[in-house]
Amino acid sequence: MAVIVNIEERKNQQGKASLQPLMDLVQADLEETNQIILNRMHSEVELIPTLAKHLIAAGGKRLRPVLTLGAANLCGYEGDRAKKLAACVEFIHTATLLHDDVVDESDLRRGNETANVLWGNQASVLVGDFLFSRSFQLMVEDGSLEVLAILSNASAVIAEGEVMQLMNIGDTNTTEDSYLQVIASKTAALFAAACQVGAVVADRPKAEADALASYGRNLGIAFQLVDDALDYSAEQQSLGKAIGDDFREGKVTLPLLLAFRRGNEEERAFWKKVVEGGDQQDGDLETALEIIQKHTALEDTIERARHYGAMAKDALGIFPDSGIKTALQDAVDFSIERAY
Amino acid sequence: MAVIVNIEERKNQQGKASLQPLMDLVQADLEETNQIILNRMHSEVELIPTLAKHLIAAGGKRLRPVLTLGAANLCGYEGDRAKKLAACVEFIHTATLLHDDVVDESDLRRGNETANVLWGNQASVLVGDFLFSRSFQLMVEDGSLEVLAILSNASAVIAEGEVMQLMNIGDTNTTEDSYLQVIASKTAALFAAACQVGAVVADRPKAEADALASYGRNLGIAFQLVDDALDYSAEQQSLGKAIGDDFREGKVTLPLLLAFRRGNEEERAFWKKVVEGGDQQDGDLETALEIIQKHTALEDTIERARHYGAMAKDALGIFPDSGIKTALQDAVDFSIERAY
Repeated sequence: MAVIVNIEERKNQQGKASLQPLMDLVQADLEETNQIILNRMHSEVELIPTLAKHLIAAGGKRLRPVLTLGAANLCGYEGDRAKKLAACVEFIHTATLLHDDVVDESDLRRGNETANVLWGNQASVLVGDFLFSRSFQLMVEDGSLEVLAILSNASAVIAEGEVMQLMNIGDTNTTEDSYLQVIASKTAALFAAACQVGAVVADRPKAEADALASYGRNLGIAFQLVDDALDYSAEQQSLGKAIGDDFREGKVTLPLLLAFRRGNEEERAFWKKVVEGGDQQDGDLETALEIIQKHTALEDTIERARHYGAMAKDALGIFPDSGIKTALQDAVDFSIERAY
Repeated sequence: MAVIVNIEERKNQQGKASLQPLMDLVQADLEETNQIILNRMHSEVELIPTLAKHLIAAGGKRLRPVLTLGAANLCGYEGDRAKKLAACVEFIHTATLLHDDVVDESDLRRGNETANVLWGNQASVLVGDFLFSRSFQLMVEDGSLEVLAILSNASAVIAEGEVMQLMNIGDTNTTEDSYLQVIASKTAALFAAACQVGAVVADRPKAEADALASYGRNLGIAFQLVDDALDYSAEQQSLGKAIGDDFREGKVTLPLLLAFRRGNEEERAFWKKVVEGGDQQDGDLETALEIIQKHTALEDTIERARHYGAMAKDALGIFPDSGIKTALQDAVDFSIERAY
């Protein structure tokens, strides 16, 4: 019988970068954050905690709250505010996941049936709204207008990025610039805000808050680039993970975008048929994978991710060396190496 | 040729309560609020202002922002903050309308095709998220944590009310208490917050802020009760307005709830078939209207509205008499008399 090894452990064993040092350093705070998350998703209206728990308790790495806790730790912060704001960041993220799954008509997330499948689109939209409102209540309780400005701006930018992505669907003329703007908005803005508030609660100088925002933004871009590559990865498929979601939804992510721009007339006709025309048949995903491979579009997507990863790591250069700084930089490498 | 007279003018001519005195008193501020709304719905992502304008510019009475401006006026406030917060309240309202139309699968609103019909559910969900985020940015710019707490709490309560309503759909066992909790949450919470912030920006004592919150809450309940009655009103139908939306959607509002509780076995079987079973045929709406009429369920819904309206007017008793106070009280009567 084949043993499916957890991807993080596997990389550890091979001596590659791991998220574990960062997770270990924030472990105690993260447990308290998880408790805040569970307490604050409560509502008299039973469907709200039921549905929210399905997604929030299903796990995932809690990467965004971990970044808030890690950034606060890097800035020497020892109080309680970072935990509440980490919960707030996770609520914003969860609200966008609920709405994304409705918008993308997704059936599965992390191998589980999505909330929209189990409880319907209607409940997913409304519970998303609730979690989003709850995140603002948590911010208001924190009481810092600076934090409120950072996170409310991030929320608006996320929504703009999602609309932009929707408008680019099926458009093979999407440029790399436009794609980058989408992922910078829909993904990297929350990574940036999650890290920046760590410096703000610690009352550190603007240069450090800016450095952490830059770290988060570039890490977020690298993370999304790798995610978009993984959606076409034969290795992922061999690990039993679903691939081809973006292809089926007509999302023009970088692997597809590069393959289109580098392709010949015949290949472009194929992309137009399956992506613009939405005319997909059995075997089309395999054809797409072949064309993408022919043009080394996955490797080059990862290569682009490395560029943003390098920027993220350099952004932390102004902080003195420490275990948490190394752990945050390792998190960048982990985000990229998970592609292999 | 028949002339359809604007319902507000018609009532004016008959010497009934009108919204006009309130509108006149806040006219100058409302124009500036409208300008803020137009400016702040802007985004580089073109679909956002296009879709938002469709709903926001389509008119409607701007009742909620008018309440914020009127409440601030009643409290003697003369600064600029109320206009921005009035815009913020309208953004929250518009975001919930966009999501409501998706959840209810509505085709028409105020006689126009809904945004979800014109641009799809996906765009409506995401632009709703944007407007919601934008409302928080406006609040943060205002800079008052008290205002932020009031409006973020209202937002969470609205979302809870919407989920509660969703769970009550098709349930003929819904009690009047449960129905009241839904409308207090989904509608009255924002009316209350809209009024309360008027006192907060004017830095008035808690008693006045509480009085305005109570005025808003009870006005909101009365307003929604009348809305729910109008959805079964033969007069509305004769004016060319669509009726029966709640019936088709299986929403157990007070007219239906009263008719069910007062009905005989045969009538209850009818309600169970059409509402719980969702089995509706031609002629069923007419049957519903007859049963509702037989049990005077519309008149009694309006009678209940009068009760909350009286509470709203009395809540303003602690303020000295003035033109704006009379206008706010007239707005209550107008909200109820529009049923005739």
